[in-house]
Amino acid sequence: MADSRIEALFKPKSVAVIGASGTPGKIGYAIMKNLVEYGYEGKIYAVNVKGGEIEISGRKFPVYKSILDVPDEVDMAVIVVPAKFVPQVVEECGQKGVKVLPIISSGFGELGEEGKKIEQQLVETAHKYGMRILGPNIFGVVYTPEKLNATFGPTDVMPGKLALISQSGALGIALMGWTILEKVGLSAVVSIGNKSDIDDADLLEYFEEDENTGAILIYMEGVKDGRKFMETAKKVSMKKPIIIIKAGRSERGAKAAASHTGSLAGADSIYTAAFKQSGVLRALTIGEAFDWARTLSNLPEPEGENVVILTNGGGIGVMATDAAEEEGLHLYDNLEELKVFANHMPPFGSYKNPVDLTGMAGAESYEGAIRDALAHPEMHSIAVLYCQTAVLDPRDLAKIVIREYNESGRKKPLVVAIVGGIEAKEAIDMLNEEGIPAYPEPERAIKSLAALYKWSNWKKKQKKE
Amino acid sequence: MADSRIEALFKPKSVAVIGASGTPGKIGYAIMKNLVEYGYEGKIYAVNVKGGEIEISGRKFPVYKSILDVPDEVDMAVIVVPAKFVPQVVEECGQKGVKVLPIISSGFGELGEEGKKIEQQLVETAHKYGMRILGPNIFGVVYTPEKLNATFGPTDVMPGKLALISQSGALGIALMGWTILEKVGLSAVVSIGNKSDIDDADLLEYFEEDENTGAILIYMEGVKDGRKFMETAKKVSMKKPIIIIKAGRSERGAKAAASHTGSLAGADSIYTAAFKQSGVLRALTIGEAFDWARTLSNLPEPEGENVVILTNGGGIGVMATDAAEEEGLHLYDNLEELKVFANHMPPFGSYKNPVDLTGMAGAESYEGAIRDALAHPEMHSIAVLYCQTAVLDPRDLAKIVIREYNESGRKKPLVVAIVGGIEAKEAIDMLNEEGIPAYPEPERAIKSLAALYKWSNWKKKQKKE
Repeated sequence: MADSRIEALFKPKSVAVIGASGTPGKIGYAIMKNLVEYGYEGKIYAVNVKGGEIEISGRKFPVYKSILDVPDEVDMAVIVVPAKFVPQVVEECGQKGVKVLPIISSGFGELGEEGKKIEQQLVETAHKYGMRILGPNIFGVVYTPEKLNATFGPTDVMPGKLALISQSGALGIALMGWTILEKVGLSAVVSIGNKSDIDDADLLEYFEEDENTGAILIYMEGVKDGRKFMETAKKVSMKKPIIIIKAGRSERGAKAAASHTGSLAGADSIYTAAFKQSGVLRALTIGEAFDWARTLSNLPEPEGENVVILTNGGGIGVMATDAAEEEGLHLYDNLEELKVFANHMPPFGSYKNPVDLTGMAGAESYEGAIRDALAHPEMHSIAVLYCQTAVLDPRDLAKIVIREYNESGRKKPLVVAIVGGIEAKEAIDMLNEEGIPAYPEPERAIKSLAALYKWSNWKKKQKKE
Repeated sequence: MADSRIEALFKPKSVAVIGASGTPGKIGYAIMKNLVEYGYEGKIYAVNVKGGEIEISGRKFPVYKSILDVPDEVDMAVIVVPAKFVPQVVEECGQKGVKVLPIISSGFGELGEEGKKIEQQLVETAHKYGMRILGPNIFGVVYTPEKLNATFGPTDVMPGKLALISQSGALGIALMGWTILEKVGLSAVVSIGNKSDIDDADLLEYFEEDENTGAILIYMEGVKDGRKFMETAKKVSMKKPIIIIKAGRSERGAKAAASHTGSLAGADSIYTAAFKQSGVLRALTIGEAFDWARTLSNLPEPEGENVVILTNGGGIGVMATDAAEEEGLHLYDNLEELKVFANHMPPFGSYKNPVDLTGMAGAESYEGAIRDALAHPEMHSIAVLYCQTAVLDPRDLAKIVIREYNESGRKKPLVVAIVGGIEAKEAIDMLNEEGIPAYPEPERAIKSLAALYKWSNWKKKQKKE
């Protein structure tokens, strides 16, 4: 059973912003603006000791001097007031019966022991009233299925199936921007900051059950309760893939991380072992993490090991084959069955896998080959590669892939790589907007498919044990 | 001494297009259009047996029925006529005294033995008249300092210092599009196709001396004369870095490559050894190749091993440190000297390398820190990292970097990584347009700097031996 207070973090019926402001540039303004402009449909209440009225994106809000004055129930209260006022605000939220408190305000545990004590007191107050705290020292929370953007980050988060959790505020906001630019669809963004109460494990538990989330990506600097995290991660990984970026692999990197976060230096090998044991996929870079996340959040698990590569360019076919071999993927090689692709290529094409439809391959070639591969029971995963030529506009290829994949019911993994210029980039964006993982390089498509296999194989191994 | 016929490939005083057409969609039209629209300032002559007059982008051209009718000297003749007419056209070009012949037309050696024979005859005819042939089976040639775009690929190639050579036509055109999209500045693009006459080694010799070229990137499927190539590559590498993408590393990839290009399977380890010996940097993916190329074509060699990382985010600083350690880069660690950065950060910043200017770092912090790092004699290379925050617009950071780097005289390597959304992407583009290598991820910046060190260290080792 999901914790109803954590559910209120993602599906609140009403949200109050304590420290709301009508002045652009202020955090209390940015959060109000994102709530309004991203289209949250629940009730929004502005709270500020100053009172009066503020206007946000053309909508007027009365400003209540205290949360206690709000004439209705409040599920979630986003707290933006200076640190020294937070204890009183938390107390009032408790009296009001608020369920969950994202505390944006900084100036607590991150400053040292004194701040940690105050933080603990906030948590005690919250728990006394049955509330949960997210943060403090965070940039907020997003849940796209409810059109909820209660952050001071970018507004136009692209809806999708990836839940993003960031321990770093600055990097988390930057990554939100990145997902918009790179068309990575998100179900949720959660800034967890000091993790005084709600931590990674709590969120994993929630996303495990959340039907709108297909995979979880965590930017982690350290965990407080390693055992709890790993046990939860292992349980959740049996249902949904978890990708983690945790910097500090090298000796010097670990030392730099220690001075930055206060976490123990040299403990990195422990993380590596624990991640492996819990089925967590550790990405080495931001790019790799999002590459994998596109595939893992959107695609079904493969029902077998046979991968088929369709290409119009020998060169990119070879590049993809290199990557597949290095990643331990199995290229389907039953020539009798692969012969079906001979129908979709000129005589000098090659139906050996990687299947070379040749540089002459146009819409019909790709359409036929993709359809046959999707329909064939022994072809379990498909990589569609395209090197931009004058024969076929990459955007037309994108349309074909979207149509064929949807008509097939999206029952097997399919990844796409398109090498080229601006039209190629547009085609890649079109595919990603439809939740079909598409990349500008063949290796990135193959490695992402390999990440899906890695997770799937880990699960199978667990079930056997 | 450079071969004057090869020089005519890049700096022709006049160009004839044999098979020129006024009909959009035809290759003979596309090449005329690119010549005109990219702004070639030499004379352009249209040749086609049909005669008459054609209009290209608002400019009218009389069409000569034969190159022999052109009333002027012709340095370069781009041949686009069907294969069967090519022998006669080459003969006429010889009589005319043309210097170099890019033969776009396909239907020769790539079809088999019969085609190879005809190809050889073309070369014999050309050599008899003192001409050189590029191709056949190519998409053309670009040389940006002369505003020459004699290809049927994209028009708006971004000028810069990278020479791109592609054996694959389809992939080469796709990569031209990629460089435009990703703001990789090019000095030249050469499609070498069947390499009947001019080959990689000839071009390397030319680019070695070409003041407009800083580095060379080759997409290679195979070489005919391995010894000649390697000897030339080794010589050229002493002056300019060479990056090669050659797919077919894995066993299966090599087999696929063999069936695609007819080159020997299993020979990949020979390439690996030969590349290493000749100082050639082998990139494993297209993305990696262009990442390195940005840095290698634009930056000076480092004068020492000390790398300084400036960052506003602990997390990305740690990521960069991990990458630096893994790549064997040396982070400068003289704390007495690094203390200079304490002037540009709040008290809770860290001047230990990676230098953490903190999330509060604005324009002044970065400006001061970059200036000090550029001026310090023991800081030999600089990586500027930025995680997008509300404190400093990434585009303003880009302006600061451009100004400071230019004012310092660009005497040491400087790479940039900016993590964020659309503004970050714009800042990255601004920097790359100015020839300052910028990336969306810290590791990519560090790995590119490492490629520069790898090449520079190889050179030093050669000089010692």
